Amino acid sequence: MPNPADTPLPPGGLRHGLETVAIPGPSIVPERVRAAMHRPMPDIYAGDLVDASDTVFAGLPGLVCSTRAQPFVVIGNGHAAWQMAICNTLSRGDTVLALESGRFATAWGGQAEVSGVKLDVLPGRLDAPVDPEALRDRLDDDRDHQIKAVLVVQTDTATSVRNDIAALRSAIDDAGHPALFMVDCIASLGCEPYRMDDWGVDVTVAASQKGIMVPPGIAFVWASDKALEAYQRADLRVGYLDWGPRIDPEVHYHLYAGTPPVSHLYGLREALAMIAEEGLEHRWQRHQLMAEAVWAAIDAWSTPGGIACNIPDRCHRSTAVTTVLTGDIDAEEIRRRCKDGAGVTLGSAIGGMGQHFRIGHMGHLNPPMLLGTLGTIEAALVSMGAPMGASGVAAAAAHLGSALT
Amino acid sequence: MPNPADTPLPPGGLRHGLETVAIPGPSIVPERVRAAMHRPMPDIYAGDLVDASDTVFAGLPGLVCSTRAQPFVVIGNGHAAWQMAICNTLSRGDTVLALESGRFATAWGGQAEVSGVKLDVLPGRLDAPVDPEALRDRLDDDRDHQIKAVLVVQTDTATSVRNDIAALRSAIDDAGHPALFMVDCIASLGCEPYRMDDWGVDVTVAASQKGIMVPPGIAFVWASDKALEAYQRADLRVGYLDWGPRIDPEVHYHLYAGTPPVSHLYGLREALAMIAEEGLEHRWQRHQLMAEAVWAAIDAWSTPGGIACNIPDRCHRSTAVTTVLTGDIDAEEIRRRCKDGAGVTLGSAIGGMGQHFRIGHMGHLNPPMLLGTLGTIEAALVSMGAPMGASGVAAAAAHLGSALT
Amino acid sequence: MPNPADTPLPPGGLRHGLETVAIPGPSIVPERVRAAMHRPMPDIYAGDLVDASDTVFAGLPGLVCSTRAQPFVVIGNGHAAWQMAICNTLSRGDTVLALESGRFATAWGGQAEVSGVKLDVLPGRLDAPVDPEALRDRLDDDRDHQIKAVLVVQTDTATSVRNDIAALRSAIDDAGHPALFMVDCIASLGCEPYRMDDWGVDVTVAASQKGIMVPPGIAFVWASDKALEAYQRADLRVGYLDWGPRIDPEVHYHLYAGTPPVSHLYGLREALAMIAEEGLEHRWQRHQLMAEAVWAAIDAWSTPGGIACNIPDRCHRSTAVTTVLTGDIDAEEIRRRCKDGAGVTLGSAIGGMGQHFRIGHMGHLNPPMLLGTLGTIEAALVSMGAPMGASGVAAAAAHLGSALT
Amino acid sequence: MPNPADTPLPPGGLRHGLETVAIPGPSIVPERVRAAMHRPMPDIYAGDLVDASDTVFAGLPGLVCSTRAQPFVVIGNGHAAWQMAICNTLSRGDTVLALESGRFATAWGGQAEVSGVKLDVLPGRLDAPVDPEALRDRLDDDRDHQIKAVLVVQTDTATSVRNDIAALRSAIDDAGHPALFMVDCIASLGCEPYRMDDWGVDVTVAASQKGIMVPPGIAFVWASDKALEAYQRADLRVGYLDWGPRIDPEVHYHLYAGTPPVSHLYGLREALAMIAEEGLEHRWQRHQLMAEAVWAAIDAWSTPGGIACNIPDRCHRSTAVTTVLTGDIDAEEIRRRCKDGAGVTLGSAIGGMGQHFRIGHMGHLNPPMLLGTLGTIEAALVSMGAPMGASGVAAAAAHLGSALT
Repeated sequence: MPNPADTPLPPGGLRHGLETVAIPGPSIVPERVRAAMHRPMPDIYAGDLVDASDTVFAGLPGLVCSTRAQPFVVIGNGHAAWQMAICNTLSRGDTVLALESGRFATAWGGQAEVSGVKLDVLPGRLDAPVDPEALRDRLDDDRDHQIKAVLVVQTDTATSVRNDIAALRSAIDDAGHPALFMVDCIASLGCEPYRMDDWGVDVTVAASQKGIMVPPGIAFVWASDKALEAYQRADLRVGYLDWGPRIDPEVHYHLYAGTPPVSHLYGLREALAMIAEEGLEHRWQRHQLMAEAVWAAIDAWSTPGGIACNIPDRCHRSTAVTTVLTGDIDAEEIRRRCKDGAGVTLGSAIGGMGQHFRIGHMGHLNPPMLLGTLGTIEAALVSMGAPMGASGVAAAAAHLGSALT
Repeated sequence: MPNPADTPLPPGGLRHGLETVAIPGPSIVPERVRAAMHRPMPDIYAGDLVDASDTVFAGLPGLVCSTRAQPFVVIGNGHAAWQMAICNTLSRGDTVLALESGRFATAWGGQAEVSGVKLDVLPGRLDAPVDPEALRDRLDDDRDHQIKAVLVVQTDTATSVRNDIAALRSAIDDAGHPALFMVDCIASLGCEPYRMDDWGVDVTVAASQKGIMVPPGIAFVWASDKALEAYQRADLRVGYLDWGPRIDPEVHYHLYAGTPPVSHLYGLREALAMIAEEGLEHRWQRHQLMAEAVWAAIDAWSTPGGIACNIPDRCHRSTAVTTVLTGDIDAEEIRRRCKDGAGVTLGSAIGGMGQHFRIGHMGHLNPPMLLGTLGTIEAALVSMGAPMGASGVAAAAAHLGSALT
Repeated sequence: MPNPADTPLPPGGLRHGLETVAIPGPSIVPERVRAAMHRPMPDIYAGDLVDASDTVFAGLPGLVCSTRAQPFVVIGNGHAAWQMAICNTLSRGDTVLALESGRFATAWGGQAEVSGVKLDVLPGRLDAPVDPEALRDRLDDDRDHQIKAVLVVQTDTATSVRNDIAALRSAIDDAGHPALFMVDCIASLGCEPYRMDDWGVDVTVAASQKGIMVPPGIAFVWASDKALEAYQRADLRVGYLDWGPRIDPEVHYHLYAGTPPVSHLYGLREALAMIAEEGLEHRWQRHQLMAEAVWAAIDAWSTPGGIACNIPDRCHRSTAVTTVLTGDIDAEEIRRRCKDGAGVTLGSAIGGMGQHFRIGHMGHLNPPMLLGTLGTIEAALVSMGAPMGASGVAAAAAHLGSALT
Repeated sequence: MPNPADTPLPPGGLRHGLETVAIPGPSIVPERVRAAMHRPMPDIYAGDLVDASDTVFAGLPGLVCSTRAQPFVVIGNGHAAWQMAICNTLSRGDTVLALESGRFATAWGGQAEVSGVKLDVLPGRLDAPVDPEALRDRLDDDRDHQIKAVLVVQTDTATSVRNDIAALRSAIDDAGHPALFMVDCIASLGCEPYRMDDWGVDVTVAASQKGIMVPPGIAFVWASDKALEAYQRADLRVGYLDWGPRIDPEVHYHLYAGTPPVSHLYGLREALAMIAEEGLEHRWQRHQLMAEAVWAAIDAWSTPGGIACNIPDRCHRSTAVTTVLTGDIDAEEIRRRCKDGAGVTLGSAIGGMGQHFRIGHMGHLNPPMLLGTLGTIEAALVSMGAPMGASGVAAAAAHLGSALT
């Protein structure tokens, strides 16, 4: 019998299976959500589509653990939600303070500048969360309350840091500052614990394609009473994003400023049902355990000058995404081998941070999916002859083993 | 043998088949488009998703018969495209002139008002297109060129009128007026002839869910050189909709101001391929024939005080949607019987126009689909004992028969 | 404005819409069934797949209005079900009597011959059902009971005749003949009234792809106690089709003689749920009304030497399929124009019957679907200049109008 | 901030992700194949469905590396293909010799017995392939050539042994015996090297749901000239499975003895295209490497009295499925924890072989899929406190790393 091993495998010869996307969003869409989105177009005036819409709106406050916040849905991506938050609460010439802990709070502030808002940045680090004391000091300095809003991300997908939202709220309170507190949960909602009411957040923004498990194209804003008061004075309003007709819509489509996003509403209804079935707190706990497995893998792989977590302090790490420093190892080559060789797409590096790649571990994720990704990274490291302390996938499997029942 | 006819059929007992949506958008999504949208999430940094995006952008100018216009894609519905047109070309205090011929040009202008634009309306009728002479007169009166933009819809889905865009352009030229000429083709693109370059349009807006055959959630703007010059001076810019980073994007996602609309891009690539396979002009011709079949049905049904086309003059009728006046016949009851009794959803009435319903006949539409809808309307009329001149579905079949080969 | 009507439409230029299949099986599969079949492969040892299987088996007796029959599922088409019926009840050298009323009872008998069974045919007509008196006479002549089984179809999809099963049972009883009475309901199950217990049928066979609304690939047999007794003596048994291990399976997969038909089981569960939601008798009534609409169309179209129903007597017409004689009109050209010109596939002619085509009107069918098909046929007749008494689609719409509520 | 880790995870709390089926068939169906199968029903008389059928038949000989064999497609599972092989080549009273190496050759022989064939079994072991010398001896003893066919499986999915088909052919030749040589490749086709012509096989049988990546419901038989000669004399023929009308069909549907299996044909066409794109020999090589990774994991896990491969000799192991002995460890508890805890379904134990489970690693399979399964098994072992020599998933990742490029 001819020995098949004599036929050399061509490049990419192992990748003939399901593609795995392990980027920090869009995350993997569950079969149930895909099936829901596949439906033909319906009557959009009445019936099931309107029911889906109602169900979605009824479920949105629970996602942020709020009983009071006013939810909004915007057809758009996370930047559309950012924009809605800005346009409905601020006026030209207002100042916003963006709390740097990676890329995204400052990018949000930069977006506000386009509309004539002044941007102040509280400088931060790329490997640690925003320092609440620094925030308090900065606000103390703002004696005449020029700052109208404080912008922060809960999880920054560039650095994979998780900010302590409750502590930042306390810092604002300690400073006695009236600025609106706006939090971007795009990368964390449904993954990390988040309690809008308890933590005194005024505006929360999020999007569909990460912890919420729906393809990109729909995003969310929740507004507190204080934010809705600010709306009364805001002069940056634009019609497509205007809260007014959405709060108390005369007709159903005012909720979406026009034609509703049919496919996404069907998908979102199903995704929210899945989240409710699992239970939001159990979901947070699942993400915690999955993240710990990732960290265990990185700890095992780590060597001096080699693999390491970007965020040294475990308490400050996101449980939805991990930025993995690769030291002297070529991060792009790891990504290339995982993708071309095995069908696993890892998150790309973001400029200014040295060699690294990112792993998304958010949303619809169970042990085989995560261990498959970690095992493939390990195979790539082996294939490159990269330094590796010990088996990371073994450490991750052991950690998950502690929770399997 | 027991006679089954002795068992009375319950209400709705005939509707057990494929639901038909014959509303003026969202229209029916082709199987090929649905299949394309059903794909799992991909790598969004490289590969097929970026190829889909490139293919879409390459195909957009041809949709408006332009070789020069700059296309933009906005994640959002038609109102998002309206907003993008306004925000990138105008400044606070500018005046826009909306040309009334139904509902939508004035609604577009109303959306602009939210951002501090002044709205002037050229009053029009609900059964006829905008009068080019009235436009010329109005612009002649605007001696100091307060009007910065003229807003019009090609097809108004409320009245089903089709405006003569070339004639309106001539009127502006005759007045020697420098205002931007902005045309909403949301209900007509891909259905009605439209030639942006030839007709001197400065900004065209459209959306996915009508003639383009993709579910709602993605919309389009095309800008002429003159519109791009206006962008340089516009002070209504907002980051999410800003043309600047989209024109010459540093990174692919700048085309979408953030995460790209993955599912819609896949669907749109397929839809554009289908349009190219058919040929845009053949597509216009198909819509013309289908619309003529609808008109033939209405002519056959019509009686004094009964069924009639809202737009008396055939030259001014849309070939994508038809507003059907029902006179003394209860239009809502026709809609209810079609839907509850047979699974056909007709377009609802819009306030202020007397008894009517609307038929969408746009996009993915062939004889059995159209004749099925017309036949069901006829069955509903029969069931109500409504006055009917002759069989409309027979007239429509005869008309289509003239083109079957 | 260039007149689009000046661009001649190319051949097939109207067919750009949903394809319609109006053949006598496979019929149109509902969205719900398609979605159910689209699921990934499951655990086949336990859980939801086994539940689906249990649900299907629990639902099968009701489909034939039996409380006693033993149901079997065979992975295969209708011919596999025929084969299962033969192999489990007969022995080499046995004689079967096939009752001709088209093509399929004799074809069934021909299939039996391959295994060494002798075939006797009771000759019949192509435009009328089997004559019960002729059957009684034939059985009276079989004094020594050589005939072990009588084979008949309820509906013959070639001729569209419907046989009177109860009357044929009476004829067998009148003759005092012990032969098994086997009925092929492949084209009729779920469409035509059928009562296995009341009518004294011994073996019923059916398949998935017609009234049951599931793609071809799975078929059914129901056996009475008398048939199960015959099994004890049958020497034609083959393992794949053997009833023994299927009746009281040690393990779940014995129900299918091996790996279960996963996708079809999921689809079938959904289809049976839909049938239960509608109600089997309401379903029969719906088919009756839809068929009457088809007949009304044909009556309207009919002219001397032109269109006519193959079965003159309405009492003997199938309510699931209609064979339409076209006289001097070229039936293949009608089919070609409907398909190439408009995307409607009609059933093809079967040899030996003169010019004709067939319309399937079974399963998932509502007024727009049926009127769309009839309207397209009418358009084709018009396009050919064929003689036509009056509008058939108008007559069909009027008939359905009498039942719309 | 409340520590989410304080909320205990409920049982099954980690399984919220994509279900993984790692059983020895049905294997995971590729997205492309699922999409192809999802299409609406077509015209079955002409056009794309007939093209799909033609493409499938053109591709089938290459799957078995034959230029001469006559392929047949049977709607059914693997047992239907077994049946087709028997019925078309044998007669009542003929003897077949089944070569035991697990469960399936003898089961095939048992199926033949139902039709009146005599079954002889060459006893074998459960941890080793059939011994060619034993076969030769047994055939030498059959001086008057009572044995008409020799039945063997290439891979037995119970034991995961792989038989040496070429060596068994030589044994038959050495004995100068005229029996037909029939090989069941159901579990191995597309995974293990197989060369029907070179190895002198007379009848090959296979099915869709394993290496071919299509849901169960369609199966295959290939016949050599010698087998086709035997058909002339066979008296076990049954109509549904009869080769005659299938070899030179008058009409297309004779290829399937009736209505074609529409969805499966579309899926199969796509699956064969994927196999052709990869290349059959590269595919064998991929399976070899994946299997070696599984074996590396088992070797690492193995302890005295613990985990071990059922087949000690690597040369005799299947590359499509592995039977894993678990010694004193509760195999069912491993399976339960993988499934209920993590969404991974492993193959169940088959009676008479001691504690074991089975891993399917066939078809559409890449490193993340395999490592995910192995990692989950390891997590389950850890969770049970089971003895484990070293990390198996680490060993597997290291092995695959050797081939990643």
